[in-house]
Amino acid sequence: MVTWFGRRPQRTEAPRLNARGVSQPTEKVDISSLAPDVLHFLGQVAYRELSEFEKLALAVATAPDLAAKEGLSAAAGRALGKHHSLIAEIRRRGHEPSDEMAPFVDGLDEFRRKTTGVDWYELLLSCYLVGGLLDDFFIRLSDGLPRDIGVRAARLLGEDSGTEALVSALQTAIKNDQALGSRLAMWGRRLVGDTLLVARSAMPDADSGGGTEARIEPVFTELIAAHTRRMDGLGLTA
Amino acid sequence: MVTWFGRRPQRTEAPRLNARGVSQPTEKVDISSLAPDVLHFLGQVAYRELSEFEKLALAVATAPDLAAKEGLSAAAGRALGKHHSLIAEIRRRGHEPSDEMAPFVDGLDEFRRKTTGVDWYELLLSCYLVGGLLDDFFIRLSDGLPRDIGVRAARLLGEDSGTEALVSALQTAIKNDQALGSRLAMWGRRLVGDTLLVARSAMPDADSGGGTEARIEPVFTELIAAHTRRMDGLGLTA
Repeated sequence: MVTWFGRRPQRTEAPRLNARGVSQPTEKVDISSLAPDVLHFLGQVAYRELSEFEKLALAVATAPDLAAKEGLSAAAGRALGKHHSLIAEIRRRGHEPSDEMAPFVDGLDEFRRKTTGVDWYELLLSCYLVGGLLDDFFIRLSDGLPRDIGVRAARLLGEDSGTEALVSALQTAIKNDQALGSRLAMWGRRLVGDTLLVARSAMPDADSGGGTEARIEPVFTELIAAHTRRMDGLGLTA
Repeated sequence: MVTWFGRRPQRTEAPRLNARGVSQPTEKVDISSLAPDVLHFLGQVAYRELSEFEKLALAVATAPDLAAKEGLSAAAGRALGKHHSLIAEIRRRGHEPSDEMAPFVDGLDEFRRKTTGVDWYELLLSCYLVGGLLDDFFIRLSDGLPRDIGVRAARLLGEDSGTEALVSALQTAIKNDQALGSRLAMWGRRLVGDTLLVARSAMPDADSGGGTEARIEPVFTELIAAHTRRMDGLGLTA
């Protein structure tokens, strides 16, 4: 099993946010026995990052001013870069990226439609919260991949997502508009529910008698704790 | 004056396309006396590339299949990379990118709206033809910039734009649908007209008595020749 930071199975600790809002998990829960097939993982995460890119590109296109556009374009570039790195991993294995991503298109497209929101702020919150939660989740899941690709995937997904611009645009708007804050708090709660369902369905089925749920639960507790800190950081009640 | 490939003013030769469809001008026309202010140039080209990125991102989002999405996402990444490199040049000069791009927003947004087209194929053709023509144009214009930035800008704009996927999608569609070919040929003619107007308006005013038009004309002849070769390569009559 791969661990690139200390692991003490008896004690789960939620990921911490550093100054830039980047998730930095300090402890890990063992879900390695639930590890997916490498190509399955790569195809799914590659399409997930493409989906994140498409949402961020829409946020760029609909940004109210140039400075916002500029910051968001950096985040879009990060998601696209992650996507292309994952595609390269698939090609390195002699497979066609489109083939490996295909099984995930319908589900993730439907999820994207449900999580796009009704305006620019809901879209931004979705990019930030869904992106953060799923990156955290897939970092956890990568723990069960073979050593080389597991480490590379985790490092790639853990890279700065360039979301500072999203956070700062949201913080300013929420501070200045209480009604918007209430609406976004509700939207955030709905997003976390939908996203956790996607994460749950992305986990490969473990042996039914193996206490799967017991092992999954602390992982989801961690993910939710990190999500709550993101909400707090924006001034939203989770 | 900067030349990073041979220049013989008496003989103008249109840019050639190499195997990947990348413009490779072999001769240059002297428009260096029409050179713009560096920040003016950088702001304009940076927003131009952001605009190209937005069009390509829309093409990704509306692509009919995963393979097309995949190829287009590479082109979108290239345009975004060019944009970010130009932004970095502006920052290096101690200026705020948003400020430098602001004067070009209305004009280029309006131009983008006019050149988006009515469907995916028109959008693809627009990305390819407008992007190619304006990159060629700004490479020419960069010739009059101070040596260091002029060379860097030209090299950056001359980099592979990743448009193979656009070309191949268009070629296939045009070959299989004669009506689409006729429609796209007309669209291509309209695009070149609108794009040349943008290029003309992007040139700084030279001294009225200096034979400006006489110097500009061969540049535009070159640009049109390269455009015609792009159209030919797609199977379209220019």
